[in-house]
Amino acid sequence: MNKAHYFDWAATAPGDEDIWNEALRIALENGANPSSVHGAGIEARHVINDCRKRCAAALGINEQSVVFTSGGTESDHLPMLSLLQRPSKGTILVSAIEHPALQNQAEMMKRTGWKVVTIPCDNRGIVTPEAVTSRLTPDTALVCVMAVNNETGAIQPVTEIADAITAACQGKRRPLFHVDAVQAIGKIPLALSHKGIDTAAISAHKLCGPRGIGLMYMAKRFEPFLRGGNQEDGIRSGTENLFGIVGLTLALERYALLPGKAADEKLALQIERTRNFIAELKTLPWCRIVPDSRDGSTEGTLYSPGVVQASFKNIPGEVMVRALSEKGFYISTGSACSSKKASRPILAAMGISADEAETAVRFSFSSHSTDEGTAELLAAVKEIAGAFNRS
Amino acid sequence: MNKAHYFDWAATAPGDEDIWNEALRIALENGANPSSVHGAGIEARHVINDCRKRCAAALGINEQSVVFTSGGTESDHLPMLSLLQRPSKGTILVSAIEHPALQNQAEMMKRTGWKVVTIPCDNRGIVTPEAVTSRLTPDTALVCVMAVNNETGAIQPVTEIADAITAACQGKRRPLFHVDAVQAIGKIPLALSHKGIDTAAISAHKLCGPRGIGLMYMAKRFEPFLRGGNQEDGIRSGTENLFGIVGLTLALERYALLPGKAADEKLALQIERTRNFIAELKTLPWCRIVPDSRDGSTEGTLYSPGVVQASFKNIPGEVMVRALSEKGFYISTGSACSSKKASRPILAAMGISADEAETAVRFSFSSHSTDEGTAELLAAVKEIAGAFNRS
Repeated sequence: MNKAHYFDWAATAPGDEDIWNEALRIALENGANPSSVHGAGIEARHVINDCRKRCAAALGINEQSVVFTSGGTESDHLPMLSLLQRPSKGTILVSAIEHPALQNQAEMMKRTGWKVVTIPCDNRGIVTPEAVTSRLTPDTALVCVMAVNNETGAIQPVTEIADAITAACQGKRRPLFHVDAVQAIGKIPLALSHKGIDTAAISAHKLCGPRGIGLMYMAKRFEPFLRGGNQEDGIRSGTENLFGIVGLTLALERYALLPGKAADEKLALQIERTRNFIAELKTLPWCRIVPDSRDGSTEGTLYSPGVVQASFKNIPGEVMVRALSEKGFYISTGSACSSKKASRPILAAMGISADEAETAVRFSFSSHSTDEGTAELLAAVKEIAGAFNRS
Repeated sequence: MNKAHYFDWAATAPGDEDIWNEALRIALENGANPSSVHGAGIEARHVINDCRKRCAAALGINEQSVVFTSGGTESDHLPMLSLLQRPSKGTILVSAIEHPALQNQAEMMKRTGWKVVTIPCDNRGIVTPEAVTSRLTPDTALVCVMAVNNETGAIQPVTEIADAITAACQGKRRPLFHVDAVQAIGKIPLALSHKGIDTAAISAHKLCGPRGIGLMYMAKRFEPFLRGGNQEDGIRSGTENLFGIVGLTLALERYALLPGKAADEKLALQIERTRNFIAELKTLPWCRIVPDSRDGSTEGTLYSPGVVQASFKNIPGEVMVRALSEKGFYISTGSACSSKKASRPILAAMGISADEAETAVRFSFSSHSTDEGTAELLAAVKEIAGAFNRS
């Protein structure tokens, strides 16, 4: 695959061969069960302990906060499912732009007696702290707002939301605040250790690491509902995936961005690239950026430069995806996870009309993206969209 | 690691390098998200479809029955958790010898209003069909009996149990029957397609495949409780672990045993080896096989030749594990998953005294085991146990 013509990094990031090979070598060398108490088991356990320390350092969190999981979906599920072990039920607040792992799972929680309230976003695709705090009730047990939306790239003010929840709950019981950070890590600087963020979800395959491995950040241990052999301090049972754990560690060390000058410098190039890409798209009469108010000036503040959503008049999104694919360029419509469904609930929540949503596609970038590849993508897009819009 | 001195195959099977390398190569070549509709996504989807067919063939089941999961624990969890989406609650029957993934999860189901009843085993460590059917009630929704116990190797009559449940429920609503087959696949012939087995759990890392990947057999689709991006027909959401799926497929093709002459021939060697091993242990005055009635004559019928549990007078199990480890031999006490706990609930369920259980250890074998390595293990065991039992 030509990575310079791949613009579906938000769906998955094709693996970095050196990371995968190194992870495989270490996993094969440490073939015993890390829970076994013999010498080979202890060696495997040491590898995991070392990875836990290194992941924590890359993310700026305590090593006790690192729980290795099978991926983003499971990292999103564990905090919500933990509610099922509680003696009383309450309310879950889920933003309108969450990934299906949270929105669909919240729907199922209703069957167990939990109430679910949707937190709306504004027409920029952003969930404000006020939208959250105005919906808090004494029985609110969990609040879910993602860090970066997977379809629009909209950066959510999760640290401000954490502060607002804390302030609103002074002297009262504070709900847990979960942040799906899958599209944020490695794309924007993020301080998971910010007070008031209780749990967060991270996936390795968005960072050129292996699929099937993720990390759940956990500020403080909670009582798990899912149980088994008690691995990961009882929070995530199942024999540890050493290949995945090493791969995730190497991917985080290479790509995670902690707030600071180094991250800003790393991001500057993609911000500039995305700004130009948006400016070029805005010159096309049959193209609208989604949302239209995104003009390239808020890259890195309101929008992740890693994701651009745009609609092209008269071209259903799937047709654009396939037409670009034939030219060797890979993009998606919405999230890969919902690619088979025609509806676009995230865009609907932003007030985007069904017609416009139907013609919207997602371009997503990574540090493997290049100016040249992006220019070639733009030329291909112009050619396809032009053909559909000839008068 | 010297695989001929490794006798902890029931905890995990150190990877077959050729399988892992081939899986890595294919996963790196197919780096896109299988849910993406562009060309690279479609190629990745083809790999998964091909693997699904091949896993089905290796297990003698329909390809629609194959659900790729993150491992044995998740494969055990999904059927039980699916109960949570039902409008009414009922009873779950769980055998006394199940893996913690089922016993501990069943305990948690009580918190959601489900009733849990334990099905006892006999002093051979075997759950009889009568023990199951005598506990069926009109509200029984799920029955869990594993195929081979991970600590004793006791083979459970799961096909007879399936028949007995079907017969007992003639004209009535039949509960789902789940079989944890993690310790059975590749160790004894097993026909998962047997009528009345509704779901089953399989793990790749017990078969020299990668950790972090498993398979749930599903005779007929059920409504899942866990939800997300709708992968695996909605039964197991989360981006597909292509490395794991290919690795699992290759491992099943190499090791799975369908009932028949070929499997019997493959097993004959280990049956003979285990029979001799048990006979030799029985000559030691301070050793008892657990259970004592296991005399080597029922290998492959009542007991998997892959697992032998034995107690050594005056030597706590952990001490034996560490002493053997110092000599380069790797064994476990109970399951690796419960290695940190002193209690041995499986042995207690068989009526083994706490004193004897404390001195019990598990030897487990695979097709990588050799006669020579087993003789060397025996010599080391004799030396250690002899030193502890000198008068």
